[in-house]
Amino acid sequence: MNYFSSDFKLGILGGGQLGKMLLTETRKFDIQTYVLDPSDEAPCKIGSNKFFKGSLMDFDTVYNFGKQVDVLTFEIELVNIEALEKLESEGIKVYPSPKTLRLIQNKGTQKDFYTTNNIPTAAYKRFENVTALKTAVANNEIALPFVWKSTEGGYDGNGVKVIRNSDSFNGLPDVQCIAETMIPFKNELAVIVTRTPSGEIKTYPVVEMEFHPEANQVEYVICPARIDDAVAENARAIALKVSEHFNHVGLLAVEMFQTEDDRILVNEVAPRPHNSGHYSIEASYTSQFEQHLRAILDLPLGNTDSKVAGIMVNLVGEEGYSGNVIYENIEKILGQDGVTPHIYGKKETRPFRKMGHVTIVNQDIAEARRVAQEVKSTIRVISQ
Amino acid sequence: MNYFSSDFKLGILGGGQLGKMLLTETRKFDIQTYVLDPSDEAPCKIGSNKFFKGSLMDFDTVYNFGKQVDVLTFEIELVNIEALEKLESEGIKVYPSPKTLRLIQNKGTQKDFYTTNNIPTAAYKRFENVTALKTAVANNEIALPFVWKSTEGGYDGNGVKVIRNSDSFNGLPDVQCIAETMIPFKNELAVIVTRTPSGEIKTYPVVEMEFHPEANQVEYVICPARIDDAVAENARAIALKVSEHFNHVGLLAVEMFQTEDDRILVNEVAPRPHNSGHYSIEASYTSQFEQHLRAILDLPLGNTDSKVAGIMVNLVGEEGYSGNVIYENIEKILGQDGVTPHIYGKKETRPFRKMGHVTIVNQDIAEARRVAQEVKSTIRVISQ
Repeated sequence: MNYFSSDFKLGILGGGQLGKMLLTETRKFDIQTYVLDPSDEAPCKIGSNKFFKGSLMDFDTVYNFGKQVDVLTFEIELVNIEALEKLESEGIKVYPSPKTLRLIQNKGTQKDFYTTNNIPTAAYKRFENVTALKTAVANNEIALPFVWKSTEGGYDGNGVKVIRNSDSFNGLPDVQCIAETMIPFKNELAVIVTRTPSGEIKTYPVVEMEFHPEANQVEYVICPARIDDAVAENARAIALKVSEHFNHVGLLAVEMFQTEDDRILVNEVAPRPHNSGHYSIEASYTSQFEQHLRAILDLPLGNTDSKVAGIMVNLVGEEGYSGNVIYENIEKILGQDGVTPHIYGKKETRPFRKMGHVTIVNQDIAEARRVAQEVKSTIRVISQ
Repeated sequence: MNYFSSDFKLGILGGGQLGKMLLTETRKFDIQTYVLDPSDEAPCKIGSNKFFKGSLMDFDTVYNFGKQVDVLTFEIELVNIEALEKLESEGIKVYPSPKTLRLIQNKGTQKDFYTTNNIPTAAYKRFENVTALKTAVANNEIALPFVWKSTEGGYDGNGVKVIRNSDSFNGLPDVQCIAETMIPFKNELAVIVTRTPSGEIKTYPVVEMEFHPEANQVEYVICPARIDDAVAENARAIALKVSEHFNHVGLLAVEMFQTEDDRILVNEVAPRPHNSGHYSIEASYTSQFEQHLRAILDLPLGNTDSKVAGIMVNLVGEEGYSGNVIYENIEKILGQDGVTPHIYGKKETRPFRKMGHVTIVNQDIAEARRVAQEVKSTIRVISQ
């Protein structure tokens, strides 16, 4: 198959920042792209060969879009799976497959999948709705505290809540859910695995999410994770096992906990380029976006090693600011060695909206960590 | 000035591969771009915010284009300078300035400039036309052999010829020219210098052009150059001096000869991103394209050090093939560690047309060099 400067067409469902960073790679290789997104101001409107405005959840819209391309991928899981299934049955290559997506989209079936395949994960119970869960708690079938998770539609911390007492149930939607044992953990880790249709598999190094000591919020994604080699090897081996069992194609980001006693438990997976892999653009021999592209086109996978240590800081809209965005002090952080801001191209900021990220690279991880802290305390995402 | 996700507009004259790689950086920073190019199939048609088809040599076209932007730059020197001068006089920031461009565009004034400023360069004489040059040769005022260079319009080896005897004059256009002493040199080197309007200056490491042992053609651009530290330091110091005297803004690629006795002579300069800096996309902390953008926007310059050794191989159309391009064996080179092809997006190949380049990076420069040779002997740019 000739992908480069040819009539071949790659379709991408979703035109947000993940799609935008994927387009950097399709442009580099001159591979034609069609993108579908509901917003006329999607970051992928520029850089794609053809942009289509339309709903990702509407069967006909997704189906008609998919019929025009040779390979179809997505940068967001919330898409019409039935349309993907029909497209796949009609010979369009859909990567990751709708079957994988179905397994992953529902956190209940995802957890069952880990259990069935002997992949370590926190203990859990599934419930048809919150009413049934409350009954189980009242009958002492579930011990407090525990973690409530909506099985569908959760995103970026939405659909997850720690239940400490009966008051914690207030405001929860009465949807299908799971109750998961709370795990006291040392570290939250992630490993990105890539797999091609031919079965070539590679893992990226383990990254570590460093949390703010008070606010329970990820502040830095750090590669390599500052953990023992044995723990890192185990985490990569488990991620590889997850990938093999899913039989997926493309990127799979595997989020994990390192427990107090150094066990690795799989938390959840995302079948696409992932926030925890953004550092790879500057730090790795092959960025996660190029790797995803190589995978879904069944090209050889690139080297996943790092050239240098990398740390990523998310740029989110500051509280109290809405409207046309200003990146205050961005010129100050550009004055630091090894600092690269990525601006996603959203004109309007809102509190906590993901507006961009900054990567800090250095030969010395401690120096990168120092600069990352300075970056974080300097740049502000505010409005005019 | 707020450049990021704002109404600020950067204009780029020329929409070829250099512009295309610059657009990767403007997209990363979400800086709006307008691009002007005569071809409707220019690589920059995708990735720019607005694309204009039109002549770069036509006064009105360039002037009217420039009036719509805040800062104007170019990826090719063959543009209408009078229009740039008028735009600059009307307050549009033009970087590099038309004054610098005028000095550089004519190889005669460029050579005079080096002489005036005590910058080492090969001895030369200027002639109004080839007829006058022939007379000088007949009168033994110029010794054979020497290098003939057309003062204007030369590009990629056009407008340059070694004159060994009177037959060598055959076919030369009767234009303004220089006759330059032939320099027996060990190495052809280049240094990229970047300067901001505020006067911040940084040089990249010295790169080396490795020639094919028989055909007199550059095969590899290698960073760092495999030369003595003292020679490298001298080359960077001379490049810095050239930049300071030109007072230019943006990138300046300074091409130099290392003579048999280790002197450095400046050959010529290009006031824009340059083929000799393509390695920087994968190998450097800051790519030459990001650096050019930082410079013309008067942002702090990035770190010019390399993370790893980098080697670049040009992908040019193979002799005997014209038409819709095929990159034969590209999947094979993708299977090698640290190999990144850049495909410029020209649908049709022609003999010697620049269609792309491949960067090879590695911690070990000897290993990079080995892989580069394998890449060069594997990939072929042919037609369907």
